[in-house]
Amino acid sequence: MKIAFFGIGLMGAPMAQNLLKAGHSLTVFDLNPALAEPLVANGAATAATPAEAAAGCAAVVSMLPHDGAVRGLYLGENGLLGKLPRGTLVIDCSTVSAECASEVSKAAHALGLGMIDAPVSGGVAGAAAGTLSFLCGGVADDLERARPLLEAMGKNVMHAGGPGAGAVAKICNNMLLAIHMIGTCEALQLGVDNGLDPKVLSEIMLKSSGRNWSLELYNPYPGVMETAPASREYSGGFQVALMHKDLGLAMQAAQKSQSTTPLGALAKQLYSLQVAQGKAKLDFSSILQLLQHAD
Amino acid sequence: MKIAFFGIGLMGAPMAQNLLKAGHSLTVFDLNPALAEPLVANGAATAATPAEAAAGCAAVVSMLPHDGAVRGLYLGENGLLGKLPRGTLVIDCSTVSAECASEVSKAAHALGLGMIDAPVSGGVAGAAAGTLSFLCGGVADDLERARPLLEAMGKNVMHAGGPGAGAVAKICNNMLLAIHMIGTCEALQLGVDNGLDPKVLSEIMLKSSGRNWSLELYNPYPGVMETAPASREYSGGFQVALMHKDLGLAMQAAQKSQSTTPLGALAKQLYSLQVAQGKAKLDFSSILQLLQHAD
Amino acid sequence: MKIAFFGIGLMGAPMAQNLLKAGHSLTVFDLNPALAEPLVANGAATAATPAEAAAGCAAVVSMLPHDGAVRGLYLGENGLLGKLPRGTLVIDCSTVSAECASEVSKAAHALGLGMIDAPVSGGVAGAAAGTLSFLCGGVADDLERARPLLEAMGKNVMHAGGPGAGAVAKICNNMLLAIHMIGTCEALQLGVDNGLDPKVLSEIMLKSSGRNWSLELYNPYPGVMETAPASREYSGGFQVALMHKDLGLAMQAAQKSQSTTPLGALAKQLYSLQVAQGKAKLDFSSILQLLQHAD
Amino acid sequence: MKIAFFGIGLMGAPMAQNLLKAGHSLTVFDLNPALAEPLVANGAATAATPAEAAAGCAAVVSMLPHDGAVRGLYLGENGLLGKLPRGTLVIDCSTVSAECASEVSKAAHALGLGMIDAPVSGGVAGAAAGTLSFLCGGVADDLERARPLLEAMGKNVMHAGGPGAGAVAKICNNMLLAIHMIGTCEALQLGVDNGLDPKVLSEIMLKSSGRNWSLELYNPYPGVMETAPASREYSGGFQVALMHKDLGLAMQAAQKSQSTTPLGALAKQLYSLQVAQGKAKLDFSSILQLLQHAD
Repeated sequence: MKIAFFGIGLMGAPMAQNLLKAGHSLTVFDLNPALAEPLVANGAATAATPAEAAAGCAAVVSMLPHDGAVRGLYLGENGLLGKLPRGTLVIDCSTVSAECASEVSKAAHALGLGMIDAPVSGGVAGAAAGTLSFLCGGVADDLERARPLLEAMGKNVMHAGGPGAGAVAKICNNMLLAIHMIGTCEALQLGVDNGLDPKVLSEIMLKSSGRNWSLELYNPYPGVMETAPASREYSGGFQVALMHKDLGLAMQAAQKSQSTTPLGALAKQLYSLQVAQGKAKLDFSSILQLLQHAD
Repeated sequence: MKIAFFGIGLMGAPMAQNLLKAGHSLTVFDLNPALAEPLVANGAATAATPAEAAAGCAAVVSMLPHDGAVRGLYLGENGLLGKLPRGTLVIDCSTVSAECASEVSKAAHALGLGMIDAPVSGGVAGAAAGTLSFLCGGVADDLERARPLLEAMGKNVMHAGGPGAGAVAKICNNMLLAIHMIGTCEALQLGVDNGLDPKVLSEIMLKSSGRNWSLELYNPYPGVMETAPASREYSGGFQVALMHKDLGLAMQAAQKSQSTTPLGALAKQLYSLQVAQGKAKLDFSSILQLLQHAD
Repeated sequence: MKIAFFGIGLMGAPMAQNLLKAGHSLTVFDLNPALAEPLVANGAATAATPAEAAAGCAAVVSMLPHDGAVRGLYLGENGLLGKLPRGTLVIDCSTVSAECASEVSKAAHALGLGMIDAPVSGGVAGAAAGTLSFLCGGVADDLERARPLLEAMGKNVMHAGGPGAGAVAKICNNMLLAIHMIGTCEALQLGVDNGLDPKVLSEIMLKSSGRNWSLELYNPYPGVMETAPASREYSGGFQVALMHKDLGLAMQAAQKSQSTTPLGALAKQLYSLQVAQGKAKLDFSSILQLLQHAD
Repeated sequence: MKIAFFGIGLMGAPMAQNLLKAGHSLTVFDLNPALAEPLVANGAATAATPAEAAAGCAAVVSMLPHDGAVRGLYLGENGLLGKLPRGTLVIDCSTVSAECASEVSKAAHALGLGMIDAPVSGGVAGAAAGTLSFLCGGVADDLERARPLLEAMGKNVMHAGGPGAGAVAKICNNMLLAIHMIGTCEALQLGVDNGLDPKVLSEIMLKSSGRNWSLELYNPYPGVMETAPASREYSGGFQVALMHKDLGLAMQAAQKSQSTTPLGALAKQLYSLQVAQGKAKLDFSSILQLLQHAD
């Protein structure tokens, strides 16, 4: 299929590579054209403008950093949506606010386009390995059309509900992730401060009711899990700044729906403190350091 | 083996039944003697005093509600420890403060007794099914002596560390449990308030990084999981009052070790609000109701 | 001076009355025309549309409930700003987001109008008594022109800074108010739960470092201060729903400026819980009830 | 009057000096005897043991750092209480837990002694100037006997209630102080991050409902108030470590009385973070730095 791909940064680039690998014909576009080189080496085309990139494409995929970039690409007088032929399928994989996702979907539908919001879970490693999970919002027909493309880039395609539901599901999931990550740090540090070995305590909690994804796959205590960012000084992984951003989206959604999220709100403040400490670029499991005594 | 068992309430009674079933000879004692009847029907003896119950026993097992009860049984001038022959094995399964566990262990060792603190995870259902997990603190020799008895009552025997370590591990685990339970409630309610189906969102988060024990085995949203307390109006299960007590133990441990536990501290406050609402006896997953709009 | 006044609800009506009393000529407008009657009885005129109300006026004053209402009145193709002659002075007393205040100011200046944002402190009682405080943002010239009108409605005119600064100051102040109100409730209830008389404890803290506006003028404990809402079942006063809204504005401002506000964030969550309890219309000092045991 | 004074550290020493100045005859005792020198130079006697210090004294005053020190001095088999003649008046000015204060009072009364708990407010400066406030618990007769001594050391003598009530009042007051201090920091920083001048915002909030003791007498923003610790790099003043300790006492009291104190609990966590940053010895208004971006 002929596809236009927008946003080829840390996440977008490997996703685009996987579409190429699956045999699709790709035109890529990024505000930083240098990023296109490795993709061009594998057969991708480039374009001078978004409209030129999308010309003749049956589908558009985007992976952009925030609401502003997504709105900037698709909406407005010169927005891309207005230039696509009826029936084109738009897949936005960016993590954006539910509001932004709904707004773009609505505009797309009004123009006779197909649209799903499909933010991902799985990080840079999952993008490279093609094992991402997609949390999708949209009508079933659009999702079925998108499925082959999504399956070329990941292994789980989940339908959260109507337009915007993918964005909501992503926001809820990441708020919960932040909470159990911080909770795991607090529990491990409390144990260590009271004489326990973090590895032993981790094993015990994994077999008990404290079990959670952070403890199982992403242990925040240095040395417990060789492959986790904690064991390489919190480099790589999912940055503090991104988790802080996602918690901002959660608070924005909660504000709009008048939902009460006390731990989510406090988690956001703690990541804000971690950013203020100059640690925005460390992996998000580095929140453990906030709790530890400085030496 | 001849065993004395102290505290035969909701948890202690089925644990004692499993010891009987495994062929041990049991003398039981409780401040409420009426609780002994079903055990006597299965062959247990009773006694008028703790000392009488322990006479001739190779091991003592206790399952009591709080620090005060444990200290009252074992310590002091008339405490049971002083009346046991050297070499007797003491197994305390109560959930108590790390301080209390260490204090009793120290006193036991000083008298030449064996002692492990072995609080449990698994609840009333696990106690009945004999599938409890034991989080044990103590020296390895004592643990090995205790193992056959523990395995008669549960399926996981985990060694957390030296004396008192079982109590610490239990406290850390339950603090983490409270945090991901509340976090799960916040995430599900935020999703529902933004139009998602709680069942669909639960399935998505189970396959994503939000996954945790509460979501997987104890879904707090009514109707999502038939077997969970949430689907029977939060009856049965693990009471709000008990979680509130355990969070109190966590805060006490953190205070002593000067550990920082922001989410744990807020979790305690939220369970305190739930107690203040008159909901101390509901299952702890009822914390969802605190977040929901009253109608 | 000939003035148009928009928004004559609980706050706007007495403010408009004070302008009349000071001898100004007033045309009032509200989406609910019935509200105009008591003002008409005192000499005010009414109008069928905002533009008609503003015709021939040297100044426009508005007191509206939220960002949407302010944007709706002033901005957009049919917005009032575009219909005012150059040099007209616009005074917006609504409590709105800093963003909204800046946006309207910018639009006004671009059209050659004078504009200040001037949210108030002092509540319905202060509006009636003409003792409001105005927290003003804007250039000094505009503020000097506005001063006589503001002084007809209040007693303190404070200059917070440039356009939008009044809104920011109001948001900061009210966040701090929420925090010390909840803190005062916590301290008083903790004292009472430990055997102190709330009146005695209040007197002691007023002479000590716990002193604050809530304790001094707005004691939240029933019976301590006869004139406070707490002593009339939390009726009247400043509603929970409004404080909750203001804390939402604070969180929105903090999100934008990447500021860390842990107590402010938790205060918002606590007012959200109070709203969820069905207590949105009680005075904001009723947050004490959230902390108290239900009987 | 002949008085024994125990604990002549930063607070105790100037308090003892004021008793000397008022003409009382003083014998002082401290575990660090070197501290006695400046007092001896002004006429105080010293002693080798607490009992020797108290011999022949009509009153005993103590100013000690924590529960352990107070219990160690007064209670136990060799405790001072047992060695005092009936009718001796004991005044403990230490900040201790309500439990400790009640326990010592009870023991004193059982021995026919008079006893008041009288923790102070006002800091080292107030101790030197003789302007301390005393928050007293005890029976009225004992308080009247103590009053002349207290008035020699301070200017406010407040009666909080029965035995232990002084300790409770102190704990409540300081929890509220911590809350409005942090709240003041959050409000000022939020204002600054949104373009306001901290001095202007402080003046505005002082005239508005945000007013509180921290803002009025102890502004935490450097440069706003020349005499505040914030303007001398947070040196001097009331240390972070001490506020953290007092918040621990508040949480302990709340735990015992089952009181809900969400902002108090979070305030404790934030001071715990500040301690973890290595800032235990800075003035407690330095909590502002926790919220600010590191450069």
